[in-house]
Amino acid sequence: MKFTFSEDHRLHFPQAELHGGEFVTPFERPSRVEYVLNRLRTVGMTDLIAPDAYDPAPVAAIHDAGYLNFLATAWADWTAAGYRGEIVPTGFPMRRMQQRIPQEIDGKAGYYCLAVETAITGGTWAAAQSSCAVAQTAQRLVAGGDRAAFALCRPPGHHAAIDMYGGYCFINNAAVAAEMFRRDGAKRVAILDVDFHHGNGTQDIFYHRDDVLFCSLHGAPETAFPYFLGYADETGAGKGEGFNANYPMPEGTPYEVWGAALDDAARRIATFGPDALVVSLGVDTFKDDPISYFKLDSPDFLKIGQRIARLGLPTLFVMEGGYAIGAIGLNTVNVLEGFENA
Amino acid sequence: MKFTFSEDHRLHFPQAELHGGEFVTPFERPSRVEYVLNRLRTVGMTDLIAPDAYDPAPVAAIHDAGYLNFLATAWADWTAAGYRGEIVPTGFPMRRMQQRIPQEIDGKAGYYCLAVETAITGGTWAAAQSSCAVAQTAQRLVAGGDRAAFALCRPPGHHAAIDMYGGYCFINNAAVAAEMFRRDGAKRVAILDVDFHHGNGTQDIFYHRDDVLFCSLHGAPETAFPYFLGYADETGAGKGEGFNANYPMPEGTPYEVWGAALDDAARRIATFGPDALVVSLGVDTFKDDPISYFKLDSPDFLKIGQRIARLGLPTLFVMEGGYAIGAIGLNTVNVLEGFENA
Repeated sequence: MKFTFSEDHRLHFPQAELHGGEFVTPFERPSRVEYVLNRLRTVGMTDLIAPDAYDPAPVAAIHDAGYLNFLATAWADWTAAGYRGEIVPTGFPMRRMQQRIPQEIDGKAGYYCLAVETAITGGTWAAAQSSCAVAQTAQRLVAGGDRAAFALCRPPGHHAAIDMYGGYCFINNAAVAAEMFRRDGAKRVAILDVDFHHGNGTQDIFYHRDDVLFCSLHGAPETAFPYFLGYADETGAGKGEGFNANYPMPEGTPYEVWGAALDDAARRIATFGPDALVVSLGVDTFKDDPISYFKLDSPDFLKIGQRIARLGLPTLFVMEGGYAIGAIGLNTVNVLEGFENA
Repeated sequence: MKFTFSEDHRLHFPQAELHGGEFVTPFERPSRVEYVLNRLRTVGMTDLIAPDAYDPAPVAAIHDAGYLNFLATAWADWTAAGYRGEIVPTGFPMRRMQQRIPQEIDGKAGYYCLAVETAITGGTWAAAQSSCAVAQTAQRLVAGGDRAAFALCRPPGHHAAIDMYGGYCFINNAAVAAEMFRRDGAKRVAILDVDFHHGNGTQDIFYHRDDVLFCSLHGAPETAFPYFLGYADETGAGKGEGFNANYPMPEGTPYEVWGAALDDAARRIATFGPDALVVSLGVDTFKDDPISYFKLDSPDFLKIGQRIARLGLPTLFVMEGGYAIGAIGLNTVNVLEGFENA
C-alpha cells in the first residue's frame, strides 16, 4: 500500500491547548506523525508518494466560502488586532443569539469555531492545506486503480464542519476525498469513521446527501467530545435520511462490543454498495489514549483492518486522531497491515 | 442615596482570563470594588446597608432551573473529573448541532457558557449569590420608598442569559431586581443598560415580555463583545415586540452622540410609563477603558446621572462593568452624584 505525507504538517504546532482550564502542550502534536512513519519503515511500508499541489476546487465544494477565507486570513487579522497569543476566540453565537458574522477577529473566530482547545497559529492554514493535499494525492492513487492507499494527514479533519473548525481540525480531508471520488465517477461513496470521537464535521457536510453514506463509531456524546453531535437518532435529513449511522458507545467499551458495531456498520456499507470507501482512521480507541475511554488493545487494530478488507472496496485510509503517542505507530499500521494481509 | 455591598464578592477571583489567546489577570477583578467604595467615602456617600440573605425565588423565575443547578454544582463536578485549572469549557453546541445537555462537566459547561473569558472557580457560585443579594437588598430599599439606591454588585450580571453565563456574569442581578419590582406590584418596569457592552442576558430574559422594557446603549455587535446580540433590529418578539430597544454605536463614539442615544432611550422609557427603573450601570464607556472603545470622559458621567434623574422614577442602580480601575470610582459615583444633585 502506498502512502502520502508532507513535512509541512510541522507548520501547525500551537504552543497551547486549552484542557481542564489550563494551557497544556497540544495532544495533537507533530511527533505523532514521527511514530507512524517510524512504524511504517519498521514493517517495510516504504512506498511514499510526495503530495501533489493542494486543489482548492473540491474543498470549496464541501466547505463554506466565508469559512475558507477566514482560515486563510485569520492570523493576519489577529496579529493586526494586537493580540499576542495564538487564536482562541472568547464569544460564541449560542442559543437565541444572532448567526451574523462579526468583523472583529475575536468575534469572527468565535463564529467559525466549535471548540476552543484548537488554537490557530501563523502556520495553521498552510499546514491544513498540506494535509488536505496529502489526502487528495492518496485519493488519486485509489481512484487510479490502487486497491488502497494511506494518507498520513496532519492536522486531522473529521471535526471540521461546513463552516466551523475545532477538535484539531480545519479542512475535512476525508470529506474532500469522498467528494473527489464522486467527481471521478463513483456513484456512491461510504465513509467509515473509526476514530474515538464522533466525526461531527463529516456528518454535517453530508447530512442531506444520499450519495455519501457516513458511519461513525465513537464515544457517546453525553460523555465525550464533541458532545453536541453523534447521537444514534441522527440518521440524515431530507434526501439524506437513512444515510447517516452513528454508533455511540459508553466508557470502557472493549473490542468485543466495538467490533460488533464495526460489523454492523460494515454490513450497512455493503448494502449501500459504494464504489469507494474512505476510512477516517483514528486510533484513539486504544486503551491507553490520554483523552479517550475505549479499551481496544493493539492486536485489535489488526482485526479492524481485516474487517474493512472484507468489504472488498477500493479503500482510502485518512489519518485522524490518536494521542497515545508511543503506541500510535503500532496501532495505525496494524490497521493497514490487517487490511493488506486479510 | 443608600448603597448595598458584600465582601463575599472576593470569593470570585479567577486566576486567569482568556484574552487574545493568553491567560491574563482578569479585567473583572476584586479591586474594582475597592475604588468604588473609596470614592463613595470621599464624597460622603456612606449610608451602607448590609445585604439580606439571598432570595432564590425571583432568580428561579428568570433563570433556567438546570442552569442554576449547574452553577451550584459545577465546581464539585469539575474537580471530581480531575481537571486542575479553573472551569473553562472547550466545546459548544454550535450551528446544526444538538442542544442536549451532556453529563460530562466539560461538555455541560460548554452547553451553559456563551463566552470563555469567564472562568468559574470554587467561590464563584457563592460570590454570584452574594452579588444578587446585594441587588435584591437595594431593590427592597427602592420598593420601600427610597427615591434611589445603589447596588455595588460584583460579579456583574447583564450578560447572564436565561441559561448561559459569560462576560463575567452568572446571575442577572438587574433582571432579578426588575422581576422583584413586578412582584412588588409595579405594573411596568424599565431597564436602562448604559454599560459599554450589550446587555444580551437581560434582553434574552425579557425578549417576549411587554411588562419590562429593555433599552441598551452599547458597542456595535459587529465589532464588540458579546458580538452575537445587540443589533438595532432586535425589537422584541411575540407579546414583547416593541419592548426591546438597542442603540449600537461604533468605535470612537463621543458623549455628544452617546448622549443623544441616551436621550432617545429616556424618552422611550418615559413613554412606556414604568413604575420603577433599573439602571445597569457600567462605566466602561470611559475613554481609557482597556477593553472598550467609546470616548466618554469623567464629567460626562455626571450628565448621565442628571439625565436619568429627569425621568423622575424610583431608580435602582446596579453595578455592571468598568475596567479602567483607577477611574472606575470617579465615573461610577459621578453617575450617582449627577442623579442626586439633579
